[in-house]
Amino acid sequence: VVLARAGLELVGAVDLDSERVGQRIATLVGGDSDSPVVVNSNFVETLENSGAEVVLLSTTSSFSEIRPLLSIALQASACVVSTCEELSFPWDRPGAQELDAEAIAAGRAILGTGVNPGFVMDYLPAVLTLPCTAIRSVKISRVVDLKRRRPALQRKAGVGLSHTAFLEAASRGAIGHIGLDCSARLLAMALGMEDAPLPEVHLQPLIDEGGVVFGFEQQVDVRTTVATIEMVLTMSMALEGEECDRIVIDGDPPVTVEIEGGLFGDTATAGMVVNSIPTILRAPGGLKTMLDLPPIGYWSELP
Amino acid sequence: VVLARAGLELVGAVDLDSERVGQRIATLVGGDSDSPVVVNSNFVETLENSGAEVVLLSTTSSFSEIRPLLSIALQASACVVSTCEELSFPWDRPGAQELDAEAIAAGRAILGTGVNPGFVMDYLPAVLTLPCTAIRSVKISRVVDLKRRRPALQRKAGVGLSHTAFLEAASRGAIGHIGLDCSARLLAMALGMEDAPLPEVHLQPLIDEGGVVFGFEQQVDVRTTVATIEMVLTMSMALEGEECDRIVIDGDPPVTVEIEGGLFGDTATAGMVVNSIPTILRAPGGLKTMLDLPPIGYWSELP
Repeated sequence: VVLARAGLELVGAVDLDSERVGQRIATLVGGDSDSPVVVNSNFVETLENSGAEVVLLSTTSSFSEIRPLLSIALQASACVVSTCEELSFPWDRPGAQELDAEAIAAGRAILGTGVNPGFVMDYLPAVLTLPCTAIRSVKISRVVDLKRRRPALQRKAGVGLSHTAFLEAASRGAIGHIGLDCSARLLAMALGMEDAPLPEVHLQPLIDEGGVVFGFEQQVDVRTTVATIEMVLTMSMALEGEECDRIVIDGDPPVTVEIEGGLFGDTATAGMVVNSIPTILRAPGGLKTMLDLPPIGYWSELP
Repeated sequence: VVLARAGLELVGAVDLDSERVGQRIATLVGGDSDSPVVVNSNFVETLENSGAEVVLLSTTSSFSEIRPLLSIALQASACVVSTCEELSFPWDRPGAQELDAEAIAAGRAILGTGVNPGFVMDYLPAVLTLPCTAIRSVKISRVVDLKRRRPALQRKAGVGLSHTAFLEAASRGAIGHIGLDCSARLLAMALGMEDAPLPEVHLQPLIDEGGVVFGFEQQVDVRTTVATIEMVLTMSMALEGEECDRIVIDGDPPVTVEIEGGLFGDTATAGMVVNSIPTILRAPGGLKTMLDLPPIGYWSELP
């Protein structure tokens, strides 16, 4: 997407996969790019040599794991847009305040975003409450057909595990969707539900007749004096019916929105990240969430 | 809505209707408010006496007509949120640059918003393009059941006129929906379609067997090298089927969104205006559009 977008220049690429290191990006992604960029395994070196203004960082879901990489980017005077799920609402994690201070001092902004968390279960529902004079509840459901998605996502969903192995992996946090709690926190914050308790996430495997996991259902509820938030995420290899995103706001006026056929996550996440670049470049330094920045949409050429 | 919202205090009310002037707002709106505010017919006097920080201005659709009132508000150091349709994208109108300079000098922000223009055919579609890595077209249709709406809106739609009278009123710009061109300009701007030509709006009456107008269909197309925008607004007293808002983005990924039953405009416009207050209070001085401000949603208590 970066190679194809007017106004952006790819100046470096980092990967730890030894099969990729040393190869030209243009070769790896196919297409007709003549980019001379070669994959490097050294993040610090790549940042220093490239003079990158923005780093697009897609490595881990964990805030504590991505934390040192963010400091390295700031030291190289680069902004960061990352798909790290826990970065989408970082304020409950240890070290978030210090990272914010580092980013302010560096005058560079950091944003965690993606399709989920980052858009379909938090940012979009928040925007959809804008016409309401009152709200009582926001219910969001996302149904994902795992057959259409990356094998890595199927593994993270626990596909193929036994019930016992699923529960064991779930107890270690090694399985299921990461970031549903971040989505709930983002949306609660958007609605001024400052008194909201930390959301509890419930994960249930979907199990076939042979006792094998083919997906999961994950749920989070937030209840405050302002309103109720309910989110349900279903990921399945054996979907009955279509993929779908549905947002139901019980408010005045009521707002019921359906994204027909669902929003395809792999493409949408790339769109979210690249489309965030102009806004993150203009933003004042600091740790930002999707709620801090002017509304963004697709752009065809860097303004 | 202002009376009911925590953190807001109604400090004044202005109307030219002699039946309202001198009456208590609490009486006029019903409900259980004990607000002592009485309707005044003098805008300048009310601003001076009330010390208002924000003016909610719903008087006219015309930028040139609302222009002097905006200057008066700025002179009284008040921000303005207005439902004036032409203010939602003011940059094509004479005097917009001067008004911007006045607002910057006053350190106060001015925003034109509402459900349409302001949300359903511009802001929301812009937000929905955010996950796209490419777009080819955005098609938006809004279908409004005039039977459910204010008599003033029915009159503005030309309901009850003959075909000839409709065309005559339309040629004077006295009829039809105002602001479809503003929505097209806002969305084109959001997508970086800076080279977009000024949109042409086409208005067609809906006529029954007796030759009487019962609504209209209004259309605007914008075609640029980036993408195509198509908007169709139908307002009818004899709707077949349900009210509906539909946004179809031909992009990667495709995004097809339906607001089931449509977004009820009268309530939604009030929500848009009141929910914009915190953002407009925090904004730097100047003439703003929905694209300039951080994303906003419903809030229950002034932050």
